Amino acid sequence: MASKTPVGFIGLGNMGTPMAKNLLKNGYPVIATDVFPESCKELQDLNALVVDSPAEVAKKADRIITMLPSSPDVLKVYTGPNGILKNVKKGTLLIDSSTIDPAVSRQMAVAAEKMGAVFMDAPVTGGVGAASLARLTFMVGGLEEEYNAAQELLTCMGANVVYCGQVGTGQAAKICNNMLLAIGMIGTAETMNLGIRLGLDPKLLAKILNMSSGRCWSSDTYNPVPGVMEGVPSANNYQGGFGTTLMAKDLGLAQNTATDTKTSIPLSSLAHQIYRVMCSRGYANKDFSSVFQFLREEEGQ
Amino acid sequence: MASKTPVGFIGLGNMGTPMAKNLLKNGYPVIATDVFPESCKELQDLNALVVDSPAEVAKKADRIITMLPSSPDVLKVYTGPNGILKNVKKGTLLIDSSTIDPAVSRQMAVAAEKMGAVFMDAPVTGGVGAASLARLTFMVGGLEEEYNAAQELLTCMGANVVYCGQVGTGQAAKICNNMLLAIGMIGTAETMNLGIRLGLDPKLLAKILNMSSGRCWSSDTYNPVPGVMEGVPSANNYQGGFGTTLMAKDLGLAQNTATDTKTSIPLSSLAHQIYRVMCSRGYANKDFSSVFQFLREEEGQ
Amino acid sequence: MASKTPVGFIGLGNMGTPMAKNLLKNGYPVIATDVFPESCKELQDLNALVVDSPAEVAKKADRIITMLPSSPDVLKVYTGPNGILKNVKKGTLLIDSSTIDPAVSRQMAVAAEKMGAVFMDAPVTGGVGAASLARLTFMVGGLEEEYNAAQELLTCMGANVVYCGQVGTGQAAKICNNMLLAIGMIGTAETMNLGIRLGLDPKLLAKILNMSSGRCWSSDTYNPVPGVMEGVPSANNYQGGFGTTLMAKDLGLAQNTATDTKTSIPLSSLAHQIYRVMCSRGYANKDFSSVFQFLREEEGQ
Amino acid sequence: MASKTPVGFIGLGNMGTPMAKNLLKNGYPVIATDVFPESCKELQDLNALVVDSPAEVAKKADRIITMLPSSPDVLKVYTGPNGILKNVKKGTLLIDSSTIDPAVSRQMAVAAEKMGAVFMDAPVTGGVGAASLARLTFMVGGLEEEYNAAQELLTCMGANVVYCGQVGTGQAAKICNNMLLAIGMIGTAETMNLGIRLGLDPKLLAKILNMSSGRCWSSDTYNPVPGVMEGVPSANNYQGGFGTTLMAKDLGLAQNTATDTKTSIPLSSLAHQIYRVMCSRGYANKDFSSVFQFLREEEGQ
Repeated sequence: MASKTPVGFIGLGNMGTPMAKNLLKNGYPVIATDVFPESCKELQDLNALVVDSPAEVAKKADRIITMLPSSPDVLKVYTGPNGILKNVKKGTLLIDSSTIDPAVSRQMAVAAEKMGAVFMDAPVTGGVGAASLARLTFMVGGLEEEYNAAQELLTCMGANVVYCGQVGTGQAAKICNNMLLAIGMIGTAETMNLGIRLGLDPKLLAKILNMSSGRCWSSDTYNPVPGVMEGVPSANNYQGGFGTTLMAKDLGLAQNTATDTKTSIPLSSLAHQIYRVMCSRGYANKDFSSVFQFLREEEGQ
Repeated sequence: MASKTPVGFIGLGNMGTPMAKNLLKNGYPVIATDVFPESCKELQDLNALVVDSPAEVAKKADRIITMLPSSPDVLKVYTGPNGILKNVKKGTLLIDSSTIDPAVSRQMAVAAEKMGAVFMDAPVTGGVGAASLARLTFMVGGLEEEYNAAQELLTCMGANVVYCGQVGTGQAAKICNNMLLAIGMIGTAETMNLGIRLGLDPKLLAKILNMSSGRCWSSDTYNPVPGVMEGVPSANNYQGGFGTTLMAKDLGLAQNTATDTKTSIPLSSLAHQIYRVMCSRGYANKDFSSVFQFLREEEGQ
Repeated sequence: MASKTPVGFIGLGNMGTPMAKNLLKNGYPVIATDVFPESCKELQDLNALVVDSPAEVAKKADRIITMLPSSPDVLKVYTGPNGILKNVKKGTLLIDSSTIDPAVSRQMAVAAEKMGAVFMDAPVTGGVGAASLARLTFMVGGLEEEYNAAQELLTCMGANVVYCGQVGTGQAAKICNNMLLAIGMIGTAETMNLGIRLGLDPKLLAKILNMSSGRCWSSDTYNPVPGVMEGVPSANNYQGGFGTTLMAKDLGLAQNTATDTKTSIPLSSLAHQIYRVMCSRGYANKDFSSVFQFLREEEGQ
Repeated sequence: MASKTPVGFIGLGNMGTPMAKNLLKNGYPVIATDVFPESCKELQDLNALVVDSPAEVAKKADRIITMLPSSPDVLKVYTGPNGILKNVKKGTLLIDSSTIDPAVSRQMAVAAEKMGAVFMDAPVTGGVGAASLARLTFMVGGLEEEYNAAQELLTCMGANVVYCGQVGTGQAAKICNNMLLAIGMIGTAETMNLGIRLGLDPKLLAKILNMSSGRCWSSDTYNPVPGVMEGVPSANNYQGGFGTTLMAKDLGLAQNTATDTKTSIPLSSLAHQIYRVMCSRGYANKDFSSVFQFLREEEGQ
């Protein structure tokens, strides 16, 4: 174990911290940084080496994972004045697990290649719980010959690692999944609401849908109607889970890529707008299944 | 077998004929009628008794199943001048397997009750293939104490019979399922199309969705992209299956019930409009999964 | 004046009362009724004859105007047990100014014709203010040869009377106008909101739109942004005007007629759903231009 | 006249060429360039000086107008290897009449300022006809103290010049107008189609809308229904006018700015998707009012 070479980790938020901890657990020395120094405390206590900037990480590690909130953050961490590419060593493997525009991933890959480094996009599904339990799913885009090297690290943090194709296809897969998820969730909310108003018991309706062609993940695994399932945000006043703001962000990425590629996505566009309205009407921090409540709430409640 | 009492059957279309044949197979004498006499030929050859009108059926049978295309047909067959209720005997069990507005079902139940008869709605899912193989699913609304009597007949024609609640809830469950199905299908079509344009292999994308939260019946059982699955309409130029016109009709029912109950169904409304546009642009008789083709087709193709 | 024959008036709500008063002002004796007897008080004080039921009105008047909230009310007032058609005299002219489904108007026309009476639909635009000032617009459907007789009465209550064609076309024109109005209003709200966020002064943006191809009634006459215009509901916290509930009702009629005629109305359907959501989120009684506020309101406000 | 200083003009397409000709007509020497040398021929014959690159134009002129198809073209012409900013002189006035993302306009303004130059955005409405007749409308964003200098040139090419505010607000105004225009047009198409199906004469319906609250530019000036108006694209099989592709592009810009600013634009998003579908179904080069035909066309036509 002692012989393992160190791994750089940039971005120690709710997701990044447990991911980096899983690298440590697997015996990898970690060299970490974050814009908020206090975020580094937990890692430091676990003997990670904390440095001042992405450029410093790049000096000391030839495998680096980034986990950042948005495209501008990725641009800054890679190409900014103290960015990774300032100091990156030839042959370094750069794995970005942020969820961002695939066009930015491709742009980073080009910039990395100019420096003799390799960039892969590897966004995740699964949330904070899965990050802690090393049960994330990684969708990986990049050169196939580099995939094994990436996989070695990613399996320390996730239960599934899927190779998707060229750079940007990891992002594409993530965006596609969340887009269909958003549609399925709003569709389930509309359907459950209509059924209840037509006199159906919600549990019975969910059962019927789940044995029929209306079945989807939102109806059978994450039902948005309070009382239908246990252990899901709808059973807990829509606390926890995947926030409406984050879903709106991902749908914005989906919309951008669709506009760029001139792809028609009518339902996805409307789903985006519904989550956008919810963000401005008090649902920003609730789980995205709260769309059931948003569509249903009665006058006077 | 000889002791079984006859069952009336009204509406011998693509669905009604195999359903009535399954009653015969189970030893029930069948007394049948249809507005198109030629539709009765096949049943007649199998020793069903063919009569001239619903009123004649009602004279001779005290259990009657109806399978008709739309609400106005149901109104006519039950309450028209030669309708069932003209001659219906006290205690007759009337089971309507048509897919219609639940408000019409409730109206028929009231009219039947006035004559001392019992009306239940029992629409089906499963299509012509399932009808032939007696593998339909019936969703049943009506008095709970009459459910056993209905179930006895319906199990001859279907694999699943689900009691949903008061009259009209069978229709409600059917409408709810098809509404969510329509949304899932269009959502899957948009998602697969976007993913392909972003460089993902369609089979791989389907696999990723199906192991993730984007999963739905349209992605894992009836994928709309040619080449992803076998034995589905998308593998056969969208022939067979469930026609766009029929989906548009069911979404019209969903819209009507939502408007009546003041329920917000934004995605379902848009799905309805998309299928409506498709009907007027050459997709009326294709399977409803052809929305993938509709959204995708390029200029000049 | 004394020689004028009496006119029946059924439905003395916010609109019906000022309309009936304008008939009195023009010298017509009025025979009135309403389900709520207290609604008749104001007319009674002005010497209208108040009777107990539509059937009573029909006995005493051979020209009758109805102004009712919805299709079921119209059905009851015309064909109910104490309805107009119970007692209607041959040759009676029945003018319905309610906004209802054109299919119900056609049904009433058939029923009236069987009794030897003539039915016309004549819904209005203009609101309570216009009703008081006899400045309503009437859109009239019915037999052209009866139009002059209708016009004589309608001009007492309105500034514009437009003959639209066969029975039901008055309703059709009303529905069409309100549908386009709803779209224009939501579109204006979205546009003004986006413009403001992009740094434009709202008054300047309205001015630019109104001299350009974006111009519409909602931008130039009834702007939904507080501070842009005076004397409109947006200048008065969206009080008064045309309530969101009423707009949602009219869009429901539009949706029903579109579904019946298999017409694709994607934007109208979405507009309907938006107003439906607003009704359940506290906007039911605000003017329909409050959609600007609905789409805009920020988290925490 | 001879004393006028030369004006640079970059981008000699369908719009740029007549605009540059109007500068010549007003006595301004023009120094022009275009990526397609053959586009320069017409200007050259009128004694414009044609040079090889934007950088060459910048050497010779201290007022430069650009008229380009999209954001990437603008980026290249300003900041590319042979771009304007390579050679721009201090104090040069740069006016960009392209319709692009306001964020790109702001980016160009910053880049220009670094070189001591001034950038203004000044997109137009009005099309090729208005460009030829010097009747365009310019919406101008930029420093107020530079507006007079810009106005001097723009009035040679347009009938209206409107100052909108800081850099990018010209684009914002243009995008806002076209967004509301798209909504009004689709709304008018839906409304006219529904009205016709409900039995209304289209000319009569247009007249009623235009005297009522449904009135908009698309109903009263550019009606999409053949036979209602003369001299509009709908009277000429939707030839000429403003192409569906261009509308889809502008709606893409609107969508991008809305996503960036987290603004909810449900109808605009749907309008975008409708025009996007039309582009892939044979309507790309028809006028955008052909949405009437798209929504209406019947099975089998």
